[in-house]
Amino acid sequence: MSESSQESNQKQHIDKELLMESLKNDNIENFRSEFLDLHAYDQASFFMELNEEERLHVYHFLSPEEMANLFENLEIEDDEYSDVLAEMSPNYAADMLSNMYADDAVDVLNELDKDQVVSYLTIMNKDSAQEIKELLHYEEYTAGSIMTTEFIAIAANQTVRSAMHILKSKAPSAETIYYVYVVDEDRTLVGVLTLRDLIVNEDDVMISEIMYDRVVSVSVGEDQEEVARMMRDYDFLALPVVDFQNHLLGIITVDDIIDVMEEEASDDYSKLAGIADLDSIDRNPISAAKKRLPWLVILLFLGMFTASLIGRFEETLDKVAILAVFIPLIAGMAGNTGTQALAVAVRGIATGDLEKEKIMKIISREAGTGVITGTTCGILVTFIVYFWQGDLFLGGLVGISIFFALIVATLAGSLVPLIMHRLKIDPAVASGPFITTINDIISILIYFGIATAFMSYLTR
Amino acid sequence: MSESSQESNQKQHIDKELLMESLKNDNIENFRSEFLDLHAYDQASFFMELNEEERLHVYHFLSPEEMANLFENLEIEDDEYSDVLAEMSPNYAADMLSNMYADDAVDVLNELDKDQVVSYLTIMNKDSAQEIKELLHYEEYTAGSIMTTEFIAIAANQTVRSAMHILKSKAPSAETIYYVYVVDEDRTLVGVLTLRDLIVNEDDVMISEIMYDRVVSVSVGEDQEEVARMMRDYDFLALPVVDFQNHLLGIITVDDIIDVMEEEASDDYSKLAGIADLDSIDRNPISAAKKRLPWLVILLFLGMFTASLIGRFEETLDKVAILAVFIPLIAGMAGNTGTQALAVAVRGIATGDLEKEKIMKIISREAGTGVITGTTCGILVTFIVYFWQGDLFLGGLVGISIFFALIVATLAGSLVPLIMHRLKIDPAVASGPFITTINDIISILIYFGIATAFMSYLTR
Repeated sequence: MSESSQESNQKQHIDKELLMESLKNDNIENFRSEFLDLHAYDQASFFMELNEEERLHVYHFLSPEEMANLFENLEIEDDEYSDVLAEMSPNYAADMLSNMYADDAVDVLNELDKDQVVSYLTIMNKDSAQEIKELLHYEEYTAGSIMTTEFIAIAANQTVRSAMHILKSKAPSAETIYYVYVVDEDRTLVGVLTLRDLIVNEDDVMISEIMYDRVVSVSVGEDQEEVARMMRDYDFLALPVVDFQNHLLGIITVDDIIDVMEEEASDDYSKLAGIADLDSIDRNPISAAKKRLPWLVILLFLGMFTASLIGRFEETLDKVAILAVFIPLIAGMAGNTGTQALAVAVRGIATGDLEKEKIMKIISREAGTGVITGTTCGILVTFIVYFWQGDLFLGGLVGISIFFALIVATLAGSLVPLIMHRLKIDPAVASGPFITTINDIISILIYFGIATAFMSYLTR
Repeated sequence: MSESSQESNQKQHIDKELLMESLKNDNIENFRSEFLDLHAYDQASFFMELNEEERLHVYHFLSPEEMANLFENLEIEDDEYSDVLAEMSPNYAADMLSNMYADDAVDVLNELDKDQVVSYLTIMNKDSAQEIKELLHYEEYTAGSIMTTEFIAIAANQTVRSAMHILKSKAPSAETIYYVYVVDEDRTLVGVLTLRDLIVNEDDVMISEIMYDRVVSVSVGEDQEEVARMMRDYDFLALPVVDFQNHLLGIITVDDIIDVMEEEASDDYSKLAGIADLDSIDRNPISAAKKRLPWLVILLFLGMFTASLIGRFEETLDKVAILAVFIPLIAGMAGNTGTQALAVAVRGIATGDLEKEKIMKIISREAGTGVITGTTCGILVTFIVYFWQGDLFLGGLVGISIFFALIVATLAGSLVPLIMHRLKIDPAVASGPFITTINDIISILIYFGIATAFMSYLTR
């Protein structure tokens, strides 16, 4: 019930039929009066459903500035930007790009070939081109790469009245007018105040009296995940970005941080599932298989290695075939425990909680956890196997194997990503299936090692 | 480098030693002048490091209103709220709760016993108690449960001047003043405008002329995940919450949505890893084991079931021990593929992409994906086993088993969560290890089924 009502809430805003009709009849006035009244996200949703011919009409109907607004909200695959831009005349496209917020324009340009970028920047208006060029320099996933330069900065020796005056004049181009940054003559960041502060204070009050001078800022090379964490903790709507001399370079707004959070969450999740990229939509089986096969093939070879290890115990298996029955159980339990420990460690790294702890403390806690889960599951298995097979020794063998396998798997699951993170190695390698396969191997070695050593007791 | 600079950026704001000294020397003025200058998040971080005696000083030094600000930013375990509140006098605690934003107060009260809630609500100021009582009614994880009632509403027949007047008077208590909602005499939501709109327009302009009348709103029973999705798509700083007659009930601000996104991402991630709760920090092995054991025990029984299935093929295994060697490979590959498909489906459900598709289209795409990955891995395995064991029939057997196992595992991984979601069953059951274990069972049945049927060809 709530869902359908929600849909109607959303749908009532777009009169698609009217829009399509005006498009087809070339009725520019009807189209514009309806279309420009929509939220940019709804404009973009409508635009994405059009075919190329219809889109050509839209470029004709909208100014580059109006198109910029729509384009910032476009959700298409990274490799499609180039195609859509190619539909526009180069001047129109360049004009549109220079009318976009600099950070969004940079996101689009980052998906194009270098030649295309250069050609758009050449015909673009000089100021925008300069701004964009500077932003293009910053490394991906840093604060610099997601910041925008369209912020409002004022001087401390102004009054509220003059600050409001500046704010009104900059309102059309600034990405947010709710935070105003205070800088000195060198553009050093000295304070911040919100529009709320400006509104509730009298016109003659000096900015220096009401500004907050302990500004929380991020440096331009900071990891975007850390920026997201600060935005979450401080509940800001924007964060200032500074260089090492504390000069204000740009701001990062909360809407961009929401996208970063989605991206980072999706990234952690993909790694745990062992899949290359979950962000883009699978349109057909081939594109889906392309993303899954690389990991599967690697895991296949690891699996063959596991198989060859078991192969070494063929003699043991030949004599006591019942041993094979418990291989998936032991390997599976080790894999499950390892994945749990991995998930805890990766989330701990992501939220910063684990950073604060000493590595020895984590090791001892995880070892303790492994002992508790190992003991519980080990004892449980021993009894189940004993009652099922009537063989206490076999039960004990499987139980003890699970005991050791769970301890080692817990430690491996938590320590591998942690150590890799501390060594600044990309933890992508420590993905879920990888840890699972490693733990398969370890647990099977433990199981067959013990079984082979005590072979003579396995009376069958 | 960037990290250390970041830390100094953050740390320079808090002079902990000064604060601790003023606390110990009972120097209330020094403490207040330093402490109240901090961002509420930094106040909360400092507060969390104190022991009980020191915290009692803080309650003495700060007014309930000042404490409310800190308390909203407190990041402690859910079960600790009750202890911290018990340290305060009941009147102080009630006063503080009534000074908190209603949504944050509700979050805290939700963690207390019913008796405690009632007693706080009784001594609290009537208006706040009424507001909080209404919010307490909404079901968890709905828009109603995360909304706040401290919004600014105006009438359409006002001027910009009078709207700004209302805004200034409500600024101290409203959770955001950047969005102003326009309602008619019945409190029906008819429009919205931003503070930016108010600022750039002349004082005499009527609100009805500049307001945006196609308001995007959510209904009060809407799932919080859907609310987060809309906030992300539309880049709003707040969303209005309405009932079925479109009466404005409250607003949801972006900072709360960031917390929802974290919670939902963490939730999806926990399910994939098969772990109960990743949000709270594991302080010791016992609390860690408590969260992991429930799943492990369930999986243990499922694993025993897998073992009993293999047990039925003991005769086959007795004759051809080499078959056991490939059990982990086949089960592992099926588990990995299933987890990948599960991850794609769960993310697709979370982002809403899969909602738009017909279920038959998804089935055929996933089946296609399974055929491609199955064929690739199947052929690869056939050759590897052939070259390793010199037995083409054995290679073919393992290859064909992998081919079928991958197809079934891909379908199971994607369809189980999808069907459960459509049937409105909690998809928590379809967690990663569960799907993995199901796929273990299916793949082993396929493998031993084929092996037993063609037993006579397995010449060893």
